[in-house]
Amino acid sequence: MEERKNLIVGQSGGPTAAINASLAGVCCGAKHFGFEKVYGMRFGIEGFLNEKIVDLDETLNSELNIELLKRTPSSYLGSCRYKLPKPEAGNEVYQKAFELLEKHSIDVFVYIGGNDSMDTILKMSEYAKIIGSQIKFIGIPKTIDNDLPVTDHTPGYGSAAKYIATCISEVVRDSNVYDLKSVTFVEIMGRNAGWLTAAAALAKNSFNDGADFILLPEIGLNLKEFINILGNRLNEKNNIVVAVSEGIKDQNGNYISEDEGNVDAFGHKMLSGTAAYLAKKIKSELGVKTRAVEINTLQRAAAHLQSKTDIDEAFNIGFLGVKAGIEGETGVMMYFDRVNDAPYLSIVRKCDINLVANIEKEIPRGWISEDGFGVNEKFIEYAKPLIAGELSNIVCEGIQSHIVSLK
Amino acid sequence: MEERKNLIVGQSGGPTAAINASLAGVCCGAKHFGFEKVYGMRFGIEGFLNEKIVDLDETLNSELNIELLKRTPSSYLGSCRYKLPKPEAGNEVYQKAFELLEKHSIDVFVYIGGNDSMDTILKMSEYAKIIGSQIKFIGIPKTIDNDLPVTDHTPGYGSAAKYIATCISEVVRDSNVYDLKSVTFVEIMGRNAGWLTAAAALAKNSFNDGADFILLPEIGLNLKEFINILGNRLNEKNNIVVAVSEGIKDQNGNYISEDEGNVDAFGHKMLSGTAAYLAKKIKSELGVKTRAVEINTLQRAAAHLQSKTDIDEAFNIGFLGVKAGIEGETGVMMYFDRVNDAPYLSIVRKCDINLVANIEKEIPRGWISEDGFGVNEKFIEYAKPLIAGELSNIVCEGIQSHIVSLK
Repeated sequence: MEERKNLIVGQSGGPTAAINASLAGVCCGAKHFGFEKVYGMRFGIEGFLNEKIVDLDETLNSELNIELLKRTPSSYLGSCRYKLPKPEAGNEVYQKAFELLEKHSIDVFVYIGGNDSMDTILKMSEYAKIIGSQIKFIGIPKTIDNDLPVTDHTPGYGSAAKYIATCISEVVRDSNVYDLKSVTFVEIMGRNAGWLTAAAALAKNSFNDGADFILLPEIGLNLKEFINILGNRLNEKNNIVVAVSEGIKDQNGNYISEDEGNVDAFGHKMLSGTAAYLAKKIKSELGVKTRAVEINTLQRAAAHLQSKTDIDEAFNIGFLGVKAGIEGETGVMMYFDRVNDAPYLSIVRKCDINLVANIEKEIPRGWISEDGFGVNEKFIEYAKPLIAGELSNIVCEGIQSHIVSLK
Repeated sequence: MEERKNLIVGQSGGPTAAINASLAGVCCGAKHFGFEKVYGMRFGIEGFLNEKIVDLDETLNSELNIELLKRTPSSYLGSCRYKLPKPEAGNEVYQKAFELLEKHSIDVFVYIGGNDSMDTILKMSEYAKIIGSQIKFIGIPKTIDNDLPVTDHTPGYGSAAKYIATCISEVVRDSNVYDLKSVTFVEIMGRNAGWLTAAAALAKNSFNDGADFILLPEIGLNLKEFINILGNRLNEKNNIVVAVSEGIKDQNGNYISEDEGNVDAFGHKMLSGTAAYLAKKIKSELGVKTRAVEINTLQRAAAHLQSKTDIDEAFNIGFLGVKAGIEGETGVMMYFDRVNDAPYLSIVRKCDINLVANIEKEIPRGWISEDGFGVNEKFIEYAKPLIAGELSNIVCEGIQSHIVSLK
């Protein structure tokens, strides 16, 4: 690309503690590589189609704002969960989209998101091919779920994993206070892939036992057998902590909490509350004190406990996504190619978006312990570097500072 | 006290992120004031009566261990919820207790805890008077609930409040991601006193709206009226965040979540899950997206987000408790007397334990906003200095380090 004018960037899917660092990287990259203007899509491609477009030069106009943006959780630009139609010549949605892109003199379109968001990059780049548009479409991965293929890991996972490991280490300390037997269930996000739940294993070190059991959605749970094993373990150890994925299923593929009697105040079957369900079940079966702790939304929003590795990488992959665009790439996702575990080193590459869109990556069976109740050294080696390092917090009156929200 | 030999210290009640800092203060104070030995009670007075006594010189034998102890959440010594019988001459429980104290040559008995724990100091000191024992009994306050009388605030509250304010600021950012109307309920601990829930107000600043409503247990909630007000607010603002105490009651004094249909998988009435209950209710009444976030155990265990003011004060009040003991005080609780709001200054004093034991302190009505849905500047002025300052974390491989647990 010889001449360049403007760049537009959007965020999509669930927020994370690192997605704004990628946005910061895109903005700084655009400035570095000489773009005239950087626009942001409010509420992803859906907002874009409704012409909700903001001038980011106006809001991200200082080095301090960029540093605050890196430390702000959630999606600064807002997000959507919108699936584009099939890209066909004459389709009205695409006609509208490309009219808007031309109107704003866009050369490069960057979209930061997970699985579904990469589908947007795939379809927009296909439509560009159909109509002969020269606009470049670049995908930047993000998801706390870490379930994207090709890339070694996704930005956002490291910070969420650090938060989970820290919480587990604190819950373990909190669980052994009284002189009695207890089981604490900690529920962690991830319906189909256990990457986040597995991060509980990182809490184990020379001063902390970590979680005693890790129940992953990749492994069907035989609840009766698990209760037996738990009962035996309670003979050896007073206080047990179990990290459990919200999406844990039995051996027939049904959600564990999908019990017939498990109804809420409105008579609906309860699908959530896996930890609460197990806590009640184990209390009634084994007669010990049980507790349920749901880590919940905070695992994707805890910017106060970001991994510096994660934030630096999220920034860099955004920055280099801009570079790929001006080098003429389109229909690609940027990804991390790990060079070495220890000392850790990854480099940023690009791949065909077809290899990524709409595909989920589970934890390899070889990284899960033989009995299925935990992960082995292969997972630890993989995950440990991703949670390393702390960002200096910018704190005012006791609270971590964020950038001012867009109106 | 001319000569001194040994000191014993115990922890009691629910754990906090600061109770170990008070233990560190007691240990350092004992060393500073020349005690020969410091013993710890395993699992409070209950464990002590079963002769579960540890030599703390062996485990807290270095400056680094003291620093780690300050940063370790929960109760290093373990805890109990045990109520002593009425102190009467000849009572077996007290005979056993004082035999053990004599056996270990104890001069000063320090107990760190909340309301119920001060009852232990009261009774032990009364029994000492009955039998003419010279052993001194000193209470050190702690509770995240901040519901002790006399003292300006309790150690542990500042760190929990900082954690809650930070979480609220992150949940607020997380709540306005999609272009739709939503209400997020964040459930916070505190059955009878709203100090912790009120800390949500500290999230409000120039870059964050904070919580839109704060529902305190001090104020009876008219649910129907609240739903109307919420509906009106949603006409002005898309995304609402409500901080709600777990103990919120209706105007007749019944728990809000005590709905007839609110039963669990085992057919039991559900008393917990106030946020979950409100989220379902509002969804069905107002037809907007709702979410429930339960902050849960982590608010008392989040040592990774300690308030430096809280930890420093917790250490100092423990240290000065030892001083009070060697000065001959007994049957007293150490407390904070606030000298000034801004710049903040408190000094440590002592009071008769009878003024504290078994009494709960609620938020004054004058600190709650007129409409009852929030707190006013008086609370903010009070609470803001308590969450100020950050401790340098001691981090290994991405996780905050704690002291090795007692076996």
